[in-house]
Amino acid sequence: MNSTEQSPAHTLSWLTDPDHGLRVPVTSIALEDSAPGRENPPLQVYRTAGPGSDPVRGLPPLRDPWIAARGDCENYQGRARELLDDGRSAQRRGAASAEWRGTRRAPLRSREGRTVTQMHYARAGVVTQEMRFVALRENCDVELVRRELAAGRAIIPSNINHPESEPMIIGRAFLVKINANIGNSAVTSSIAEEVDKLQWATLWGADTVMDLSTGDDIHTTREWIIRNSPVPIGTVPIYQALEKVNGEADKLTWEIFRDTVIEQCEQGVDYMTIHAGVLLRYVPLTANRVTGIVSRGGSIMAGWCLAHHRENFLYTHFDELCEIFARYDVAFSLGDGLRPGSTADANDAAQFAELDTLAELTRRAWEFDVQVMVEGPGHIPFHLVRENVERQQELCDGAPFYTLGPLVTDIAPGYDHITSAIGATEIARYGTAMLCYVTPKEHLGLPNKDDVKTGVITYKIAAHAADMAKGHPGARDRDDALSKARFEFRWRDQFSLSLDPATAEAFHDETLPAEPAKTAHFCSMCGPKFCSMRISQDIRDAYGDTADQELIAGGMAAKSAEFRAAGGTVYLPELVVPRP
Amino acid sequence: MNSTEQSPAHTLSWLTDPDHGLRVPVTSIALEDSAPGRENPPLQVYRTAGPGSDPVRGLPPLRDPWIAARGDCENYQGRARELLDDGRSAQRRGAASAEWRGTRRAPLRSREGRTVTQMHYARAGVVTQEMRFVALRENCDVELVRRELAAGRAIIPSNINHPESEPMIIGRAFLVKINANIGNSAVTSSIAEEVDKLQWATLWGADTVMDLSTGDDIHTTREWIIRNSPVPIGTVPIYQALEKVNGEADKLTWEIFRDTVIEQCEQGVDYMTIHAGVLLRYVPLTANRVTGIVSRGGSIMAGWCLAHHRENFLYTHFDELCEIFARYDVAFSLGDGLRPGSTADANDAAQFAELDTLAELTRRAWEFDVQVMVEGPGHIPFHLVRENVERQQELCDGAPFYTLGPLVTDIAPGYDHITSAIGATEIARYGTAMLCYVTPKEHLGLPNKDDVKTGVITYKIAAHAADMAKGHPGARDRDDALSKARFEFRWRDQFSLSLDPATAEAFHDETLPAEPAKTAHFCSMCGPKFCSMRISQDIRDAYGDTADQELIAGGMAAKSAEFRAAGGTVYLPELVVPRP
Repeated sequence: MNSTEQSPAHTLSWLTDPDHGLRVPVTSIALEDSAPGRENPPLQVYRTAGPGSDPVRGLPPLRDPWIAARGDCENYQGRARELLDDGRSAQRRGAASAEWRGTRRAPLRSREGRTVTQMHYARAGVVTQEMRFVALRENCDVELVRRELAAGRAIIPSNINHPESEPMIIGRAFLVKINANIGNSAVTSSIAEEVDKLQWATLWGADTVMDLSTGDDIHTTREWIIRNSPVPIGTVPIYQALEKVNGEADKLTWEIFRDTVIEQCEQGVDYMTIHAGVLLRYVPLTANRVTGIVSRGGSIMAGWCLAHHRENFLYTHFDELCEIFARYDVAFSLGDGLRPGSTADANDAAQFAELDTLAELTRRAWEFDVQVMVEGPGHIPFHLVRENVERQQELCDGAPFYTLGPLVTDIAPGYDHITSAIGATEIARYGTAMLCYVTPKEHLGLPNKDDVKTGVITYKIAAHAADMAKGHPGARDRDDALSKARFEFRWRDQFSLSLDPATAEAFHDETLPAEPAKTAHFCSMCGPKFCSMRISQDIRDAYGDTADQELIAGGMAAKSAEFRAAGGTVYLPELVVPRP
Repeated sequence: MNSTEQSPAHTLSWLTDPDHGLRVPVTSIALEDSAPGRENPPLQVYRTAGPGSDPVRGLPPLRDPWIAARGDCENYQGRARELLDDGRSAQRRGAASAEWRGTRRAPLRSREGRTVTQMHYARAGVVTQEMRFVALRENCDVELVRRELAAGRAIIPSNINHPESEPMIIGRAFLVKINANIGNSAVTSSIAEEVDKLQWATLWGADTVMDLSTGDDIHTTREWIIRNSPVPIGTVPIYQALEKVNGEADKLTWEIFRDTVIEQCEQGVDYMTIHAGVLLRYVPLTANRVTGIVSRGGSIMAGWCLAHHRENFLYTHFDELCEIFARYDVAFSLGDGLRPGSTADANDAAQFAELDTLAELTRRAWEFDVQVMVEGPGHIPFHLVRENVERQQELCDGAPFYTLGPLVTDIAPGYDHITSAIGATEIARYGTAMLCYVTPKEHLGLPNKDDVKTGVITYKIAAHAADMAKGHPGARDRDDALSKARFEFRWRDQFSLSLDPATAEAFHDETLPAEPAKTAHFCSMCGPKFCSMRISQDIRDAYGDTADQELIAGGMAAKSAEFRAAGGTVYLPELVVPRP
């Protein structure tokens, strides 16, 4: 089990709303004094790690009482579990490899004819505990939350069968969120590894996690993940449905898919990627692309359309999906199955044709009060990134945009967390609500734990840079606290305020390992001799705290004399510095 | 000594201009066939590694004959070498620790009254070999090169005492360039390490290298670096001058600084950062900043101004510097000594006041036909980045802008190569000509070899993404070649076309180590079952190469039948995949 703190200076703390019996976890970062008597209050930052859980027991059902109090849900028998839910190897074995042994509860659904989505409540003018939790967490007015939900410009993914999750909101009016993908594949990894990756991803800041498992034990892996996840879980149900037909896409049917969706609704999946925009007539538009179709779900549905020469069953049965999602509050993540897989294919006819259909489906889902976000690319040259989000926001009436990167060049496999963070910052600045991370292994292999951490932190950077660019209230507080610590040589505070405290400290210690260096008024870039920060302190001592330039100009000669009289000089006495 | 190739598939090749006896090195990347009979020609890419050198001998003086043929230079005795040039420890020892033992030549300067700058020739309508070399290298018309040089919108840093360098151009009309900083400090590293870092940096793509040494053996370290450098070398002479006065900035004088500049002109430094814009009256503007002055040179000059209450001697003696630079063709890199050191201080009065003065100095240097670029920040929130380059380009009449990042957030020490690459892409897109790299060690310590490589590759990504965004001719060729290789599962070509072939291959092999996987038509992200690339191939086989949508629509039913008749199905037969 992972620690739930990134640093010894971090502690779990709470924002409280006593009137509504709510408390929202935040991370409190303790800071040293600037000088004796000049204290720095702890900085509280947004927290995704949750309270921490023992994987075999799972998390407490935070939202159960809220859901029960609404009185519009019922427990029921639920779908019969099948071995095939865990794939053919489970059938061979006669069991999944590591059945979930924690609490099992009969699934919840809405009472007949009732809709239990946050959008439904918001439109009815009802303020839910989930909305209050989010308002506290985002430090905004709850009415803003309700209004954005009602308008479809934001979603709170919150399946009633995932009561362990801490409500979070995805919308352009709020902090930019990031998603981390985990999941096994036919070629690698285990259940324990995936739960470990989940906890690791949320420790470093993942706001949601998608389980993209495509190998054995899909059902059971997902059970372990959901029961331990403090963040919403997303999936791509077509992956599991395909496993149920032995990987032969042309054998897929609506009935098999529908059954898989209900299986996942009952487990508590909060949002599902549905590739309903891959229409038969769009498929030929990809024939002459440099990289064709690169979305797995998109290619499966395109292959199905091709093989049967019939319209995509996800499109023809979309209303039925809406009816199902409305009973569990599962949100659509409308998949961009025709997204470009190379900068050469960016913003082309296939991509934008599908986007038109996603806009149509967004409005259809809203007729059922079902929450929707829309997925976006992918690979886009930097100057074409902005058009993607502005076009989506216009066509989809502001429905939240959820993009993968985009990567702004194709030439750096091994560094695609970086090529994509550049595009992600640009697209989030102009209104993308959530960014799907990309790890250094993109295009090359499956991410290990280090890759997951690197991907998450890289995307926290992109999301945060966009929050600052959008002028989000308070977005700069952490930057300013760290810059102040830097200027005052509070090294430990620089480490604990950073997105990756241990790495920052380790890098510092590589050059100046000795403990005294942690308080030294210089750093290894300049050495003790001419530290610019120190000189700036001298300037501040000479001129500090007056903003009156007239007075400054007049007073400079005098100040200069003072400065030298006071022994002000432009270097520090040589300190004993440990040399590597 | 480093290999001069990044991959076995890379070879040194040449672009030639027989009429002028010129050949420009490029890297040729060999590619596999798409299919029997469908060859892929090798891709030639811009190369900075040079021909390779043995550090103790140095590189051949490529430009000697060109310089000699102009007949406007003379060899002369040169300044007398002093032990203090290598710092106090050299004085103690009575020698530098590792004197340069390669060829030593009497320094060159222009004949009395002659100006030997590329700007001077360009303005006189003379097309030099350096200009032709650059035109060939940039694949552009030589008249564009001459015109941009004459207008001051581009520079070719090319000290006549650094004949080993391969001419390169810095200007917004050309490919975006990147600089790598190396150099020892009072607290760490050796001459051999610095030469190794130089060769390492140019191997991965550094277009220029700055030697920022501040410790012992400054003169000798620089000699080793210049004699081995195929790229222009930049320095910040104030660092060495400060060493000559025992690190006490208030003891600095114009005479000591001038002597240091001449020392470096004779060694062959191609451009020098001069902090002549830090004026006495600007210093108080920094007093109330969050992070004061963070530029080392800026803080030294600010300290000097403070201590003496006199105007910055670099400003008052600027014309003399121009006269010196004109005789060696050293370019100014006008330092932004008052750049913001935190996003909180971005675009403030101190920063923009200094920029006004840098614009004035740019015009003064141009009166002497001396080449100039202008340095820029630093730390800037993403939405304020664009203003920096547009303001500089307007005030400085298009003189090349050379920026450090900028970092778009302060909260990620350990990842500032990423926080800054985001800002760098944005600022380069709008016209910044050269980007100074930032390594993961920024703010924490001195970069080691791995950090240098990571910094260079991260900045190649930013520069390349900006070239694509600017629509630079041919900028996309490498992307398209790599995307095509990806679509065709030419794994080895994906590796050799990437900016870091070995890392890409190593990441691939982590998940699928076996050699067969290098040719497998799937990858570990999806496994053998439903590879989207493979399905796209099926679609292309069904519809490929027809763009006529009518025909496609009409033909789809038939195609679908064909597709299935041909055994077209949406998965590959299961392959034996090695499991970790």
